[in-house]
Amino acid sequence: MLKYEYIAKEIMNLIEDKDLRQGDKLPSLDELVTQFEVSKNTVIKALDELQSHGLIYQVRGSGIFVRGRRQKGYINMMEIEGFNSMLREFDLTSKVLELKEVIPSETVQEHLHIDADQPVYYLKRLRYIEGRIFCIEESYFDKNIVMYLNEQIAEDSVFNYLTNNLKLQISFLDHYLRVGKLNQQNAVYLELQEGDPGIQVESIFYLANGVPFDYSKIIYHYEESQFFIQGNSYYNLMN
Amino acid sequence: MLKYEYIAKEIMNLIEDKDLRQGDKLPSLDELVTQFEVSKNTVIKALDELQSHGLIYQVRGSGIFVRGRRQKGYINMMEIEGFNSMLREFDLTSKVLELKEVIPSETVQEHLHIDADQPVYYLKRLRYIEGRIFCIEESYFDKNIVMYLNEQIAEDSVFNYLTNNLKLQISFLDHYLRVGKLNQQNAVYLELQEGDPGIQVESIFYLANGVPFDYSKIIYHYEESQFFIQGNSYYNLMN
Repeated sequence: MLKYEYIAKEIMNLIEDKDLRQGDKLPSLDELVTQFEVSKNTVIKALDELQSHGLIYQVRGSGIFVRGRRQKGYINMMEIEGFNSMLREFDLTSKVLELKEVIPSETVQEHLHIDADQPVYYLKRLRYIEGRIFCIEESYFDKNIVMYLNEQIAEDSVFNYLTNNLKLQISFLDHYLRVGKLNQQNAVYLELQEGDPGIQVESIFYLANGVPFDYSKIIYHYEESQFFIQGNSYYNLMN
Repeated sequence: MLKYEYIAKEIMNLIEDKDLRQGDKLPSLDELVTQFEVSKNTVIKALDELQSHGLIYQVRGSGIFVRGRRQKGYINMMEIEGFNSMLREFDLTSKVLELKEVIPSETVQEHLHIDADQPVYYLKRLRYIEGRIFCIEESYFDKNIVMYLNEQIAEDSVFNYLTNNLKLQISFLDHYLRVGKLNQQNAVYLELQEGDPGIQVESIFYLANGVPFDYSKIIYHYEESQFFIQGNSYYNLMN
């Protein structure tokens, strides 16, 4: 870990320890320099890093402030850390419905930038929050990157396995969200009625080198899920 | 505009002009330095800026790549530039239903950090895409910041008025998305049936100094709207 990353992490711990919220003020740049005994440049780089992730904002001549992110029970669409990290206050469980190697469909080929002759892992899970059905998840993993997967891992946390065991650096993801009416099969899974609202999120996960390796499609139970999303202006760049 | 912002904008123009997509390679750092005749540091700062907004990604030892953002017809939840900028390929129109000063409810007071005795502008609009009803929007503006508003502005683009006329620097926003069943009134507005899916997005817009000034609640027509959201890892900071 680079020094500025370490300082960024320390500042995050500070926010967490003091339970600081949206708009709360952080110590000044000089105070942070003194507190962490590092150079001004290191603190500035750490603050820029935190700002670029939407965790703080800096107001010239006024100070450094906390930007709210963690909303209990909301799925933070900016985070790629998996439900277990995101919804850590809750009891989350999974039930594996299917895990097998399949020939990728055209959609999967396109999203994962692979050919038809390259098999992928297909994983279908039901996920529960506090014992209540929360979503149906179908994932396709590029087998060149995720070379091995089993039911035990899939019952547990695939995200932890990818990052801790396979040491994959998952760096960014794209979500496509739309809403429709549930078909009969998905309604049965979600214990809802056919025609009830269904939230579909298609997600593509990328490694640090820009290679997509996981394409997932989730149908959420509309009464059990709500989403948090942050936006930042890049107006200056557009005009 | 600072020099690095200018260069960032030039790089964005390059992406637009060449119609580059997700994963397409940009010129190298050295090539950009030569092309724009600025210092290496300026280009690096411009690239960091673009990366923090999810517009490019850099792979050490490999190059600089475009990150896809603009998906035709998708509402980009990271952008705060308003529908007119986001959905510029489409014909967008608005119909003002109500514009008046009101006493803020407790929810509005809380979101805008104001007191009950501080009146706010309340604006209710129907918005159309290609002549079809697209969403119902209710907005509350802090009158200390948005001191004047009229129907003409509201029929036009409030965003353009705030940024061009009032010179407000809108810097970030938070979205809270959930899905439910439409009540009768909203179903009539959206030309749907009561009980059909309704997508509700509550958004809070902030100025560069962290002051919230606009709280909006939109109900989208589920067949006319789809959303794009980007995520970035800050895993290194979390673990």
